[in-house]
Amino acid sequence: MRRNRFLSTFAQCLALTAMLAVGAPSYAEIDPLPSWHDGPAKQGILEFVNATTTQGAPTFVPQAERIATFDQDGTLWVEHPMYTQVMYCLERVPAVVKAKPELAEVEPFKTVLSGNREAMAKLSMKDLEAILAATLTGMSVDRFQAEVKQWLAEAKDPRWHRPFTELTYQPMQELLAYLRANGFKTYIVTGGGQDFVRVYSEATYGIPPEQVVGSAGGTHYEYDKDGKPVLIKEPKLLLNDNNAGKPEGIHLMIGRRPLAAFGNSTGDQQMLEYTQAGAGARLAMLVLHDDAAREYAYGPAHGLPETKVGTLTEKLYGEARKQGWTVISMKNDWARVFAFEP
Amino acid sequence: MRRNRFLSTFAQCLALTAMLAVGAPSYAEIDPLPSWHDGPAKQGILEFVNATTTQGAPTFVPQAERIATFDQDGTLWVEHPMYTQVMYCLERVPAVVKAKPELAEVEPFKTVLSGNREAMAKLSMKDLEAILAATLTGMSVDRFQAEVKQWLAEAKDPRWHRPFTELTYQPMQELLAYLRANGFKTYIVTGGGQDFVRVYSEATYGIPPEQVVGSAGGTHYEYDKDGKPVLIKEPKLLLNDNNAGKPEGIHLMIGRRPLAAFGNSTGDQQMLEYTQAGAGARLAMLVLHDDAAREYAYGPAHGLPETKVGTLTEKLYGEARKQGWTVISMKNDWARVFAFEP
Repeated sequence: MRRNRFLSTFAQCLALTAMLAVGAPSYAEIDPLPSWHDGPAKQGILEFVNATTTQGAPTFVPQAERIATFDQDGTLWVEHPMYTQVMYCLERVPAVVKAKPELAEVEPFKTVLSGNREAMAKLSMKDLEAILAATLTGMSVDRFQAEVKQWLAEAKDPRWHRPFTELTYQPMQELLAYLRANGFKTYIVTGGGQDFVRVYSEATYGIPPEQVVGSAGGTHYEYDKDGKPVLIKEPKLLLNDNNAGKPEGIHLMIGRRPLAAFGNSTGDQQMLEYTQAGAGARLAMLVLHDDAAREYAYGPAHGLPETKVGTLTEKLYGEARKQGWTVISMKNDWARVFAFEP
Repeated sequence: MRRNRFLSTFAQCLALTAMLAVGAPSYAEIDPLPSWHDGPAKQGILEFVNATTTQGAPTFVPQAERIATFDQDGTLWVEHPMYTQVMYCLERVPAVVKAKPELAEVEPFKTVLSGNREAMAKLSMKDLEAILAATLTGMSVDRFQAEVKQWLAEAKDPRWHRPFTELTYQPMQELLAYLRANGFKTYIVTGGGQDFVRVYSEATYGIPPEQVVGSAGGTHYEYDKDGKPVLIKEPKLLLNDNNAGKPEGIHLMIGRRPLAAFGNSTGDQQMLEYTQAGAGARLAMLVLHDDAAREYAYGPAHGLPETKVGTLTEKLYGEARKQGWTVISMKNDWARVFAFEP
């Protein structure tokens, strides 16, 4: 009797579960990419995820092997008029000079302190390297993290007057979430500094520090005056995570070839090629900055103005078409660009 | 009426769930570490996991920050009489010479080909480096993976006559699984080659390639004769993941300080110090090889014979006691060493 009642309740549970399942909107009814217009870019994403996650399909990929890599500057967030990390370095100069007053009269620090934008735009690559070394190295990793965190909480971008971490592209945020919901591990693979991006990657993109691959300097393990172990950031480049450095960095840090990769400039070409060259279903996409009204328009492809920040050459654009990469037009493919848009 | 029946079924479901929960053995009744004898080592592990995972406890750590790092050789699997990767390199020499016959008369290859163990034991560090370079570099990462995979499928260790991947310590396998079940991300942090360990880490330890940090050479991105992108392994050391290189490698590859770290030799000292120096509950443990009958006994600590493979100095052993690291005695703490024991 008791057993019968148990079975009967169990059967009713099953029926209830079925009712609830029918009552809920089916998966296909919920658009996982609401900020994307229908078109080849959105279609390409949906088809790729379907191909790699459908059990029994010849293109099915086990969950552990689902790796997707994203460039950051110009792919996940705004990179114009200047990379955010370069803004950080320039704005840190007064604090660096305060700690070392002898630098006030030394170039390139003198020019940066002057605030003369025209003179600053003429700084050489060697000048810039000196500024990066002074602001990104020579302190413990803990102190660096604290400095970046504080700057991000206070700094505002000049156009939208918002924290830089709000200038991420809403369609790409949806893409990150959609891929993760389908068992993909999402990585940032950036030419920017690994330690810099790791400070905000989790809060901003839901990507934990260990899934950020970037240009990386060495650290030196030592003991502070209290005998406590510290890691000091050194001005020694271990990994230049641009161009060929992106697949090399992916191998070093992840050890698997991605199934999907997303970029926007020539620095991403090798990552996209390397991804595309693997067997089975692959997705390689290129974000095109062609929306001057909502964001920026640059790059010689499509006859847009040339730029040194996020260069997309005619050659890479031709390569994209030849290899079947999908170009994402910000203007045509994105219903909205930022989460803060009305 | 229909609604009432719905609610009534729903209530019965809840009751059934409660019954099933009561019927199942409670969590505390299942020993997550059955191959560990009761004692301070096992107790230390259980208390640490309890402290870091109990909601509301002052020592609670959010799941995303639960990182545990494990040395491999001598901590997760057997390292005597010689590191498995060195065995691999020596056994690959005939294949390397077959491809480049001119090496047959060149040292140190000539000595390795002779099979004279006594002469091989006298090879210098420079000789060994030449052998490592010839067997670990100069090929694509894909080809290297295939070669290691094939060797692991065929090679047997000389004492137990089993594949090397069966020589993992069952208590440590249980510890890895227990930590993962409690939301920890488990990493291997090895002085051995990152690319080598990544070939078998997932199948052997449940640790995916991207959670293996090891000594790492550079790779070079290029195109093969068909124009396909390949990564070629270069004889250039990027990361020597030993001693201070361990915390440096952890910062480079993970970007967070571990909560728990496990090692067995002087090469692990800095990783254990770095882990221990963080705030809150920390676990730093040292595996002591003191069981000649079931495994090996070595290391000057406890008056065991000295060794060059997995050195544990009297100094480090003293450090362990001073810093409150827990020493795991293989003899006294482990009920069994290997899964294949009867």
